[in-house]
Amino acid sequence: MGKKFSKNYKVTYYDCDSLSRMNIGNLVNVMLYYSGIQSTQLGRADAYFHELGMTWIVTDYEIKVNRLPRAFEEITIVTEAKSYNKFFTYRDFEVFDEQGNLLVTLHSTFSLMKIEERKLASLKAEYLEPYEADKIKTIRRGPQLPNFDEPFAKDFEVRYSDLDTNNHVNNSKYLNWVLDTLSLEFLSTHEMAHMHVRFVKEIAYGHTVHSLAEEQENQTIHQIQVDGVVHFESLITWRSYEV
Amino acid sequence: MGKKFSKNYKVTYYDCDSLSRMNIGNLVNVMLYYSGIQSTQLGRADAYFHELGMTWIVTDYEIKVNRLPRAFEEITIVTEAKSYNKFFTYRDFEVFDEQGNLLVTLHSTFSLMKIEERKLASLKAEYLEPYEADKIKTIRRGPQLPNFDEPFAKDFEVRYSDLDTNNHVNNSKYLNWVLDTLSLEFLSTHEMAHMHVRFVKEIAYGHTVHSLAEEQENQTIHQIQVDGVVHFESLITWRSYEV
Repeated sequence: MGKKFSKNYKVTYYDCDSLSRMNIGNLVNVMLYYSGIQSTQLGRADAYFHELGMTWIVTDYEIKVNRLPRAFEEITIVTEAKSYNKFFTYRDFEVFDEQGNLLVTLHSTFSLMKIEERKLASLKAEYLEPYEADKIKTIRRGPQLPNFDEPFAKDFEVRYSDLDTNNHVNNSKYLNWVLDTLSLEFLSTHEMAHMHVRFVKEIAYGHTVHSLAEEQENQTIHQIQVDGVVHFESLITWRSYEV
Repeated sequence: MGKKFSKNYKVTYYDCDSLSRMNIGNLVNVMLYYSGIQSTQLGRADAYFHELGMTWIVTDYEIKVNRLPRAFEEITIVTEAKSYNKFFTYRDFEVFDEQGNLLVTLHSTFSLMKIEERKLASLKAEYLEPYEADKIKTIRRGPQLPNFDEPFAKDFEVRYSDLDTNNHVNNSKYLNWVLDTLSLEFLSTHEMAHMHVRFVKEIAYGHTVHSLAEEQENQTIHQIQVDGVVHFESLITWRSYEV
């Protein structure tokens, strides 16, 4: 069990879509930002790892949504780095409303990458000790995503405003590309119930992103390709939504 | 002179560009959000005007940048609704760093629009009284923007993620379109010193935005058109920037 860290956040109108539901990419941004604050408090800021020539990369998210936060709601985000094995660490997040109802759960998988060699570093106990994360042997495997039958697609050029301080595309933008490939009509009549996300390769300025999607029953399957190579994939389960 | 309202904000990494400078659209979002908090505290929340069948629209910004805030800086935003005439109210914002240095000034012009008729409402004293804004006679005129000689252009399709709770394109997105029309090379070697912005017409989902730009000495001129009609224009003065 990891050391828990908790922080409140007041949802703004610009965090939200036209139906006042918080954009999932913005929510993930806030969650990751708070985990960064915990790391800094525990002496494990990004700078600690940069000095070792390493940087954290996210490889997987699994998001369960009971209800998306709404504009002007005060939410509480609780996070803990739960466990780690040789190459992966597993951090969980929970989002609660003011009445203590669990709104969103996020299970995330991170790896440490050696910046020069672009290879995974093995996780030493001293890196994770301050978080009180458990050392485990098992490696979590994400689900196999269904195959496309007849996908539709949209192209997105990577923009200056897609980059963040890490000088690569901010990971919330991938989630936007996925949603922006679906129609406004679909997005307005559905709410995400579950999302699995896999980051395969980095995307850089100058890339044109080819975002494929297909609706299969209550799910949508997604793939983001650059020059025919898969950089990102996702599977979303939806429930219908009425205003 | 208006009643001042002040609030601190900690700049996140996802607010910033690849050189750790806060994105101007994100900064404007935070400023406007705080002015909304002041309005709510003064009994003039958006709901007050919606009940009267009216909504605020922004028509102009004038932004002076001494230095853009950086990631993880704690900034202080001070705002006041300074004055109003028959149709326009003038709200000022100042952004300070932790040492009290003035980083950014924003002069903004707002109007009240009658939602059904899409026409300007005249501003009654009772609307503005709680802000202690001065009633004035003069109407500010923005500058005449220079004409294009040989502009270049980029097209942007309006996306689901561009919309906010007002069910139209969030006004920070216009600023992103403007910057995203310029090259990464230019943006990485320059910093904005002054920006004038004029919102002419709303932009909606389904629109394709044609963003024109031209560099003239230390300035860039911008126009955003939809189907050949001007919806937005801007003039930016730049200074060179070295990391």
